[in-house]
Amino acid sequence: MTSLDQSELVRLLLAFQQGQLDLQQTLQQLTAPATAHTPDAAVDLDRRQRCGYPEVVYSPGKTPAAIVEIFRALQAHQQDCLATRVSPEQATILLAAYPQAQHNSVARTVRMEAGLPTETRGKVVIVTAGTSDRPIAEEALETVRWMHCDVELIVDVGVAGPHRLPAQLPRLKSADAIIVVAGMEGALPSIVGGYVSCPVIGVPTSQGYGASFGGVSALLGMLNSCASNVTVVNIDSGFKAGYVAGLIARRAASAQ
Amino acid sequence: MTSLDQSELVRLLLAFQQGQLDLQQTLQQLTAPATAHTPDAAVDLDRRQRCGYPEVVYSPGKTPAAIVEIFRALQAHQQDCLATRVSPEQATILLAAYPQAQHNSVARTVRMEAGLPTETRGKVVIVTAGTSDRPIAEEALETVRWMHCDVELIVDVGVAGPHRLPAQLPRLKSADAIIVVAGMEGALPSIVGGYVSCPVIGVPTSQGYGASFGGVSALLGMLNSCASNVTVVNIDSGFKAGYVAGLIARRAASAQ
Amino acid sequence: MTSLDQSELVRLLLAFQQGQLDLQQTLQQLTAPATAHTPDAAVDLDRRQRCGYPEVVYSPGKTPAAIVEIFRALQAHQQDCLATRVSPEQATILLAAYPQAQHNSVARTVRMEAGLPTETRGKVVIVTAGTSDRPIAEEALETVRWMHCDVELIVDVGVAGPHRLPAQLPRLKSADAIIVVAGMEGALPSIVGGYVSCPVIGVPTSQGYGASFGGVSALLGMLNSCASNVTVVNIDSGFKAGYVAGLIARRAASAQ
Amino acid sequence: MTSLDQSELVRLLLAFQQGQLDLQQTLQQLTAPATAHTPDAAVDLDRRQRCGYPEVVYSPGKTPAAIVEIFRALQAHQQDCLATRVSPEQATILLAAYPQAQHNSVARTVRMEAGLPTETRGKVVIVTAGTSDRPIAEEALETVRWMHCDVELIVDVGVAGPHRLPAQLPRLKSADAIIVVAGMEGALPSIVGGYVSCPVIGVPTSQGYGASFGGVSALLGMLNSCASNVTVVNIDSGFKAGYVAGLIARRAASAQ
Amino acid sequence: MTSLDQSELVRLLLAFQQGQLDLQQTLQQLTAPATAHTPDAAVDLDRRQRCGYPEVVYSPGKTPAAIVEIFRALQAHQQDCLATRVSPEQATILLAAYPQAQHNSVARTVRMEAGLPTETRGKVVIVTAGTSDRPIAEEALETVRWMHCDVELIVDVGVAGPHRLPAQLPRLKSADAIIVVAGMEGALPSIVGGYVSCPVIGVPTSQGYGASFGGVSALLGMLNSCASNVTVVNIDSGFKAGYVAGLIARRAASAQ
Amino acid sequence: MTSLDQSELVRLLLAFQQGQLDLQQTLQQLTAPATAHTPDAAVDLDRRQRCGYPEVVYSPGKTPAAIVEIFRALQAHQQDCLATRVSPEQATILLAAYPQAQHNSVARTVRMEAGLPTETRGKVVIVTAGTSDRPIAEEALETVRWMHCDVELIVDVGVAGPHRLPAQLPRLKSADAIIVVAGMEGALPSIVGGYVSCPVIGVPTSQGYGASFGGVSALLGMLNSCASNVTVVNIDSGFKAGYVAGLIARRAASAQ
Amino acid sequence: MTSLDQSELVRLLLAFQQGQLDLQQTLQQLTAPATAHTPDAAVDLDRRQRCGYPEVVYSPGKTPAAIVEIFRALQAHQQDCLATRVSPEQATILLAAYPQAQHNSVARTVRMEAGLPTETRGKVVIVTAGTSDRPIAEEALETVRWMHCDVELIVDVGVAGPHRLPAQLPRLKSADAIIVVAGMEGALPSIVGGYVSCPVIGVPTSQGYGASFGGVSALLGMLNSCASNVTVVNIDSGFKAGYVAGLIARRAASAQ
Amino acid sequence: MTSLDQSELVRLLLAFQQGQLDLQQTLQQLTAPATAHTPDAAVDLDRRQRCGYPEVVYSPGKTPAAIVEIFRALQAHQQDCLATRVSPEQATILLAAYPQAQHNSVARTVRMEAGLPTETRGKVVIVTAGTSDRPIAEEALETVRWMHCDVELIVDVGVAGPHRLPAQLPRLKSADAIIVVAGMEGALPSIVGGYVSCPVIGVPTSQGYGASFGGVSALLGMLNSCASNVTVVNIDSGFKAGYVAGLIARRAASAQ
Repeated sequence: MTSLDQSELVRLLLAFQQGQLDLQQTLQQLTAPATAHTPDAAVDLDRRQRCGYPEVVYSPGKTPAAIVEIFRALQAHQQDCLATRVSPEQATILLAAYPQAQHNSVARTVRMEAGLPTETRGKVVIVTAGTSDRPIAEEALETVRWMHCDVELIVDVGVAGPHRLPAQLPRLKSADAIIVVAGMEGALPSIVGGYVSCPVIGVPTSQGYGASFGGVSALLGMLNSCASNVTVVNIDSGFKAGYVAGLIARRAASAQ
Repeated sequence: MTSLDQSELVRLLLAFQQGQLDLQQTLQQLTAPATAHTPDAAVDLDRRQRCGYPEVVYSPGKTPAAIVEIFRALQAHQQDCLATRVSPEQATILLAAYPQAQHNSVARTVRMEAGLPTETRGKVVIVTAGTSDRPIAEEALETVRWMHCDVELIVDVGVAGPHRLPAQLPRLKSADAIIVVAGMEGALPSIVGGYVSCPVIGVPTSQGYGASFGGVSALLGMLNSCASNVTVVNIDSGFKAGYVAGLIARRAASAQ
Repeated sequence: MTSLDQSELVRLLLAFQQGQLDLQQTLQQLTAPATAHTPDAAVDLDRRQRCGYPEVVYSPGKTPAAIVEIFRALQAHQQDCLATRVSPEQATILLAAYPQAQHNSVARTVRMEAGLPTETRGKVVIVTAGTSDRPIAEEALETVRWMHCDVELIVDVGVAGPHRLPAQLPRLKSADAIIVVAGMEGALPSIVGGYVSCPVIGVPTSQGYGASFGGVSALLGMLNSCASNVTVVNIDSGFKAGYVAGLIARRAASAQ
Repeated sequence: MTSLDQSELVRLLLAFQQGQLDLQQTLQQLTAPATAHTPDAAVDLDRRQRCGYPEVVYSPGKTPAAIVEIFRALQAHQQDCLATRVSPEQATILLAAYPQAQHNSVARTVRMEAGLPTETRGKVVIVTAGTSDRPIAEEALETVRWMHCDVELIVDVGVAGPHRLPAQLPRLKSADAIIVVAGMEGALPSIVGGYVSCPVIGVPTSQGYGASFGGVSALLGMLNSCASNVTVVNIDSGFKAGYVAGLIARRAASAQ
Repeated sequence: MTSLDQSELVRLLLAFQQGQLDLQQTLQQLTAPATAHTPDAAVDLDRRQRCGYPEVVYSPGKTPAAIVEIFRALQAHQQDCLATRVSPEQATILLAAYPQAQHNSVARTVRMEAGLPTETRGKVVIVTAGTSDRPIAEEALETVRWMHCDVELIVDVGVAGPHRLPAQLPRLKSADAIIVVAGMEGALPSIVGGYVSCPVIGVPTSQGYGASFGGVSALLGMLNSCASNVTVVNIDSGFKAGYVAGLIARRAASAQ
Repeated sequence: MTSLDQSELVRLLLAFQQGQLDLQQTLQQLTAPATAHTPDAAVDLDRRQRCGYPEVVYSPGKTPAAIVEIFRALQAHQQDCLATRVSPEQATILLAAYPQAQHNSVARTVRMEAGLPTETRGKVVIVTAGTSDRPIAEEALETVRWMHCDVELIVDVGVAGPHRLPAQLPRLKSADAIIVVAGMEGALPSIVGGYVSCPVIGVPTSQGYGASFGGVSALLGMLNSCASNVTVVNIDSGFKAGYVAGLIARRAASAQ
Repeated sequence: MTSLDQSELVRLLLAFQQGQLDLQQTLQQLTAPATAHTPDAAVDLDRRQRCGYPEVVYSPGKTPAAIVEIFRALQAHQQDCLATRVSPEQATILLAAYPQAQHNSVARTVRMEAGLPTETRGKVVIVTAGTSDRPIAEEALETVRWMHCDVELIVDVGVAGPHRLPAQLPRLKSADAIIVVAGMEGALPSIVGGYVSCPVIGVPTSQGYGASFGGVSALLGMLNSCASNVTVVNIDSGFKAGYVAGLIARRAASAQ
Repeated sequence: MTSLDQSELVRLLLAFQQGQLDLQQTLQQLTAPATAHTPDAAVDLDRRQRCGYPEVVYSPGKTPAAIVEIFRALQAHQQDCLATRVSPEQATILLAAYPQAQHNSVARTVRMEAGLPTETRGKVVIVTAGTSDRPIAEEALETVRWMHCDVELIVDVGVAGPHRLPAQLPRLKSADAIIVVAGMEGALPSIVGGYVSCPVIGVPTSQGYGASFGGVSALLGMLNSCASNVTVVNIDSGFKAGYVAGLIARRAASAQ
C-alpha cells in the first residue's frame, strides 16, 4: 500500500474532494509504490526520503547489465549510487558505462555521486586489527564517503601489542562513531570501547583459521563484549557498519 | 598505566619540574588508576569521564552487600547508579540501604540518581514484538532513563499483523534511535528499519520454543537483516541496547 | 496503513465524495487498524477477514487476566477463541470466566466457539510415532477442531514395527492433509509420504535423549525427507501443523 | 510386499479361487513391486497411482545415460518426466535423446510431458526476496508446471522496501498456495503469511554471507515464523516447495 | 500389510484354495498385524519372530498402568519383558503388579522372564571409564542379561592410568562383543579396540562439564575413532549397546 | 611395551631362566614392538594377531611411494593388503608396482591378497538408498571381500518407495550382518532394522543438500534410530562399516 | 602391562635369574599395576611417580564414602589428597573423617597434605575478569597450593577498564605461569599475554548470558587469541589450569 | 601509552628533573610506542623485551613485499625472524631477498636468525598420530628451533597400535614440554599425558573426514582430556604450540 503519512493523506483527499484529482489519480497515489522497474529489479526510489539514503546495490548474482540499469534509474532521480561486492568483471562494465564512477578494488565497491551539492559532516573512525581485515574496512570507508561524512582509517592495532592502541587515542576521541574491524578472537572492539564515549560498531571478519569458524568466534566475542557501547553487524559486513556509523555521525554533526 | 591525555601530562610534568609536586606525587598520578576498591570489587571511577557514563553493576554472582558498597562508592563521587539483573533478594536489601532508589521489578533494575541537575535530551523509542519480550524492553527503558534521555515504549506490533506497525510510524519517526526487542524469527527490526532514517538496534530475546534455540534464531535473523540501518546486541541484552541508543540520542540531541 | 483492498477503497472514496462520510471518518477508515486494545495486548481483529481465521492466543508470559481480556475482545466480535500452551493456573481462571470453554489438559489448550453456525468440512488425519508425542498431537487436534474440520488420530505406529502403518492405509488415504508427529530420528513422515497423495506436514518433537538434541535430529530428518510431499513446522509446533492442515483441508473440501 | 488395498485384494483372491489366476500368478501380484529396473536404478512406476504424480529424477551422481534410461522407463508407461539439478552436460545428452523435452537452464531442470490430455487446474504464486533467489524460484516454477497447475512469479519484493509487497496483494490473494523463496534473515514468508488465507511454503536459500551460514539463518527464521500459515522445506529445495504447492492447488482447484 | 514370507504365503493360499480357510479368515491373516492393543499402546507381538527378541518398553511419558498393561500383553504370549528408564514411581507400581520382576535401580530397569527354559550363550564384556558412567553400563548389563548372554563388568579403567587396561586383557579377549561406556573425550573405545579382535560398541555418556556438551564430545571422539572395530550408539544408550552386543554374542555363541 | 599375554610371558621367562635366551634377547622380546619401519610410516605388523586382520592403509596425505612401501612390508609377512581413499594417481603407481592388485575405482580401493589359502565364511548384505551412495557402499564391499566373507549389494531401495524394500526381505534375512548406506534423512537403517534379527550398521553419507549438512542429518537420524539393532559409524565410512560387519559375520559363520 | 622402564626391567630380570625372585613374583611385578582397589574405584597409586603428582578425586557421582576410601588409600601411601567439585554434603562427611583436611567452599575443594616435608617453589599468578569467575579461580588456587607452589590472586581487572590491568604489571611479571579466568568474550588472556613472557593459561568460564553459550564464546575467543603465549583448558576447568601452571612453575623454579 | 615499568619511570623522571632530558624528549619517551612503521604494517619492536621473543609474521593476506619489509625492520634491530603459513610465491620472493633464510616447505615457514650468539637450551618433543599431521608438526618444530630450544619429532604413534607409544617412553620422558599433534578423535594427548610429568600441549588438526568437522572433534577430545597435564591450542596451530612449548622449555632449562 502507500507510504504516505497523515499530512500527505489529508492533502491528497482534499485535492480529490475538490476535483483537482479524479478517482483514478487518487487511487494511483494511494496504491502506487515509488518503485522503478528495471528489466531485472524493482528499485526502491522512495528509500532516500524514507530512510535518509538511497537503495544500495548488492552485486553478487546480478548481471553487469542489471547493475548498469539500476544505476541509471537512481541517477535519473538524482540519487547517489553505491554498488558493493562488485566483481572485477562487473566493475569493468560499470566503469565503461559510467566513466565518472569511482572503483575501489580492495573494497570491491563502485560509487557514483549524483552531483548535488552536499556538505560533508560528522566523522567516523575505522580501526582494523590486522592487515587481512583491510578489504572489509575499505568497504566501510567507501560507504561512509558515499554518505558524505569524514572518515579516517587506523590499521594494524591488534591487542597483542598493547601500546599501539593508546597512541591512537586522540584520533579515536575525535570520532562521532567508531567502526572496529577484527577477526580471530574479536577482542578489539571491547578494548576500544573502554576508552571512548561514542558508539562502537564491531565488524567480525572471516579471517583466521581453525576454530575461528569463518568469523563466528569473532562474532561471538563482539556480541559478548563487556564494553557497554559495542553493537555488532554481520560477519564481513563492512557496508552495514559504514552505513550505521554514517547515520550516527550525520545526526551528531547537525549539532555542531 | 595512567589514562592521562597529552595536555594533562604536560601540566603534570611542569608541576613536577617546578617543584609543585615531588617525585612520589608525580609517580602516583602517573601510575594510580582512578579506581575505588570495595571489599569485593574494583570500581572504575574514571569510566564517566572516559566513556560518558559511570560504571553499571551487573548483579548476578554479587552479594547484596557488595552491590550496596559499589553504590556507595559511586554516590561518593556524585555518579548516577544503575544495577541490572537484580534478584528480588538483592533489590530488597538495596532499597533498604537506599530508600530513594527506584526498583523496576519487571526490568529487574535498581536505579539511583546522583541528584546533579541534568537536562533530559534526545529521544529513544523501544518497540516489542510480543508481550513476553516486555522484561528486556523494560531493562532498555530503565537504562535510557538513567542516561537522561526521553523514551517511549510501543508494545505488541509483531509482523503477523501487518497493519499494526504503520499505525505507529509518527512515533517511530520522532526517535533519534530505535530499539526493537523481538524473539522467534526476529524479523521486526528489518521491517522497522525499512521505514525510518535513524539507527535501529535489534535485541534478540530468548523467548520462543523449539528451533528458536534460546534466541539464536532471532539473533541470526537480525544479523542477516536486509535493512541497512540495523545493528545487533547480545540475546536479552536490553541494557546494552539502551546504552547505545542513549549515546546516539544524546549526541543527536546536542544539535537541536 | 489500512488493509482495505482495491474494491473497498473505491467504495470508501465514493462514499466520501458523495458526502456519506466526512473527512474525519474517511481518514479513520483509511488509517485505523482493526485492532482491539486490551490493557496488555493489541488484538488483531482483522485477522479472520485477512487470513481466514481469528488470532490465536499464545499463553506463555501472559497473565490469566490478559488472556481473559483477549477472549472477551474476540468474543465481542463473534470470533472463535483458541489459547495454546495454557498452564494449569491459566486454565483454571479462564474456565472460571468462560464455563462454556473446552479445556484439553493434555493438549494444554482452551477453545471457545463463537456459536455461529459453521459447517464442518475437510478431513485431517494426525499420526504419532510414540506415546510421548501425544501432547503435541493433541494440540494439533484441538487446532483442527477449532477450524471446523474433521480430524482423526492414529497413535503409536512408529517405524520399528513395519506392519503397523500399512494397516492404517485406508484411514490415511481418506485425508485431505496428514500431520505426522514424531521425535527421535523423525523418519515417519517419509514413510507416510511414500503411501499417500495429499500433503504431509511433519512435526518434530523434543522427545528423545542424547543426540536427539531437543528435537533437532527429528527436524533435520524431516527437512531432508526423501518423500516429495513433506513440509515441516517448528519443533513441538502442533498448533502450526494443525493450522496449515486445516487450511488445506477446508480448501480441498470446498470442492466436494 | 504388495501395495494393494483391501478392495484390490478381494478382487485378486476371488480371481484366484475361481481359477482365473493360478497360484504363480497370484503370488506374483501379491509380491511383485511395480518397479522398472534400469541398469542403474529401480524406477518406482507405482508412484503416480500411490502419490498422484510420477517419480522425479534427482540428477546429481547419475550418469547422463542413467537419466535417459529412467526417462525411457517412465515414458513407456505414459508418465510425465522431470529431472532436477541437471548439469549442463547432463542436459545436453538428455535433449539429444529427447528433443521434445524442455530445458530451463536457470532452474537446472529438464521436463518432458507424456502427452496425455491434462487440464491445468489450481494456481500457485511464487515470490522471491532478491534476484539471487531466482534459480530456486525457477525450479519451483518448473515443478508446478509439470504438475499442470497455473503459476505466477513475483520477484524482488524483499522486506527492506515495505511498500513493494502490498502492491502485489491482489495477485497474492488469487493463489491456492504461495511459495516464498528467501535468503538472509528469511523474514518474507512471515510478512506474506500475515496478508493471506492460503498456506505459505517457505524456501530458505543458501544466498547471503557471514552469519547466513549457507541458508541456516533463513531456515531458522522461517521455522520460527510468527505467521500461523507458514511451513518450511529444506534449504534451496525449490522442487519440494513446488511439489507440495501443486498438491494443495490441485485439491483446492477440484472445488471450483 | 502382512509380514508373512514367501513360504507362509504359499501355505496360506493353498489352505484358502482348499477351503480350510474362508475368504474372511484369509483376508484377516493377510492384513491383520500381529499387534496387541492395550488402552495406551500398540504392542508389536511379532517383534520376537521378526527380530529375535520381543519389544522393549521405553518408560518415559508412559503411565505406570500403561507399562503394567504392556507387560501383561507380552507375558500372555510368553515373551520376556524389559522396561528401561523406569522412574522410582513406575518401578514401585510395576513391582507391586509383578513381584517376580527384577528391579535394578542404578540401571533404572525392570526385567521379567517369561519362564521358558533358555540356555545362556555368548559373552559380552562391558567396560567403563569412570564411576559416573555406571548407570549407563548397568542398563547395558541388564539388557544383555535379558537376552540370555553371559556378561561381565569392568569399571574405572580410564586412559589416564595407562596400566589399568592391559591388566584386564584376558577378560577382554574372552568376549564375543565389548561395550565401552565413556564420557569426556571418549577415547577409551579406541584404546580397547586396538587390543581385541571382536566388535567394540562405544556408548558416549553425558557425563562431564564444559565443552563435553552433554556427551557430544565423547560421541564425536568415538565416531572418529582410529580403531577399525568401533561402532557407536546414541549418547547414554546403554540399552541399544547391550542389545546389539547381545545379538553379536548369541550368533557367535551358536558356533561353539 | 610388549603385547605378549600371560602364557607367552611364562614361556619367555622359562626360556630365559633355562638359558635358551640370553638377557639381551629376552629384553628385546619384552620391549620390541612388532613394527615395520618404512621411511614414512610405522607399520603395525602385530595387528593381525591382536585384532584378527592386518593394518589397512588410509591413503590421503601419503605419497604413492609410501603406500608401495607399506604394501611391501605387509606382503613380506604374508598379510592381505587394503588401501582406501586411493586417488587415481596413487592407484596408477600402486598397480604398476603390484600388477596382481585389484583396483575398484568407484570404491577408491586397492586390494591385494597374500595368497594364503583362506575359506570364505559368513555373509554381509549391503543396502543403499540411492545411486549417489554407491561409492561408499563399494568401499564397504571391498573391505568385506578383503576379510574373506560373502557379500551382496542391494541398491536403490530408499523409503520413498515403500514396496521396494520388502521385495528384498529374503536376501536381507540371509545376512549375518547388514550395512545400510544412506544420506538425506538417514531413515533406511531404521526400516531395515525393523525387519531383521541381525545387527544393522548404518553408514551416513555426505550426499544431499541444504540442511543435510554434509551427512550430519543422516548421522543424527541413525543415532536416534528407534530400531534397537542399529549402530552407526562415521559419515562416509564405508571401510569401518565393512570391517565391523565382517568381524560379526566371521564369528557367526564359525558356528554353522 | 607393566610401566617399568628399561633399567627397572634389567634389575627385575637379574633378580629373577639370580633366584631373588621366583617366577610368580616376577610375573606379578611384570603384570601387576600399581593400583589400590577400593570398593568403588581403582586408585592409580603409580601416578605420582609417573606424572609427578598423585591422582586427584573428581567428586561428582561418587558417594561420600567412596571419596573417604580413596583418601584413605592415598594417605596410606603418603600421597597428598585433593578432591574437586565437592558438594556440601560430601564435604561434611569428608571433614568428619579427616578433621585436618582443608575445605574451600567457594572453590568446592577439600585438600589434605600427607605431611611430608616439601619446599614451596615456583610462582603462579591467577587473574579474573569479574566477580562471578571467582569459584573457578579459587579451584585453580587450591590446586596450585596442593602442588606446593606460591600463588597470588588478582581479581576484577576486566578489559572494560583499561587502566586496571597495567597497574598489576609488576605482580604479573613476577609469575612463572599465569592463569586467566574469564567469561563473556574471553579477551583478557590476549591482553595479559601481550604484556608478559611466561605461558598464559586461559580458563573460559560458563558465566554470561545470551550468546555466551555457557562458555563457548569465551572458549573460542581464547583459542583464537592473537597472543602467541596463550593455551586453553576446558570451560570452568580451574583444576586443570592450576595443575598445568603448577607443573610449569615447579620446573622453572628448580632453576633459581 | 608507554610500557615503561616503575624503575624505568623513576630513571626517566630523574633524568628530566636534572636536565638530561628536556620536556619534549621526556614526553616522547613517555608516549612513543616502540613500533616500526613499514608501508603496510606496524611492527611491534618492543615485543622481544616484553614477551621474550620478537613478533612473528602471519603471512596470509600480506604481499611478499610487505613481508620483506617486516623482516628488514626486525633485522635492523637484531631480532630473529619467523614467517608462518608462507605460500610458495611468498617464499620465493622472501628467499630472493634473504638468501640466508631457511625455508621449510612442509611447515610453510621461513626462518632467519639475527646472528647473535645464542645458546640452545631446553628440550621439546613433538609427537604425531599419523602422516597427515606432519605439516602442523613441522610448523611447531620450526618455531621451537627459532626459539633456540632442542627439539625431537616422533611420528606415527597413533592409539590404534597400543605398543608403539610405550616404545618411545624414554624420549618422551626426556622432554621439558611435549606437543601432541593429532586429528580424528584427538585421543593421543590423553594417552601421552598419562605417562609423563611435563606439560602436554595438544594441537588438534583438521585432518579426517565425516564427523571430524575440520578438527572440531579432535579439539573437543583434547579439551575434555582426562589427563590433567593437557592444555590445548587452536586447530592446526603448530606455531602456537611450538611457541608455548619453547617458553616452558627455556624456563625449565635455566635450572639445569
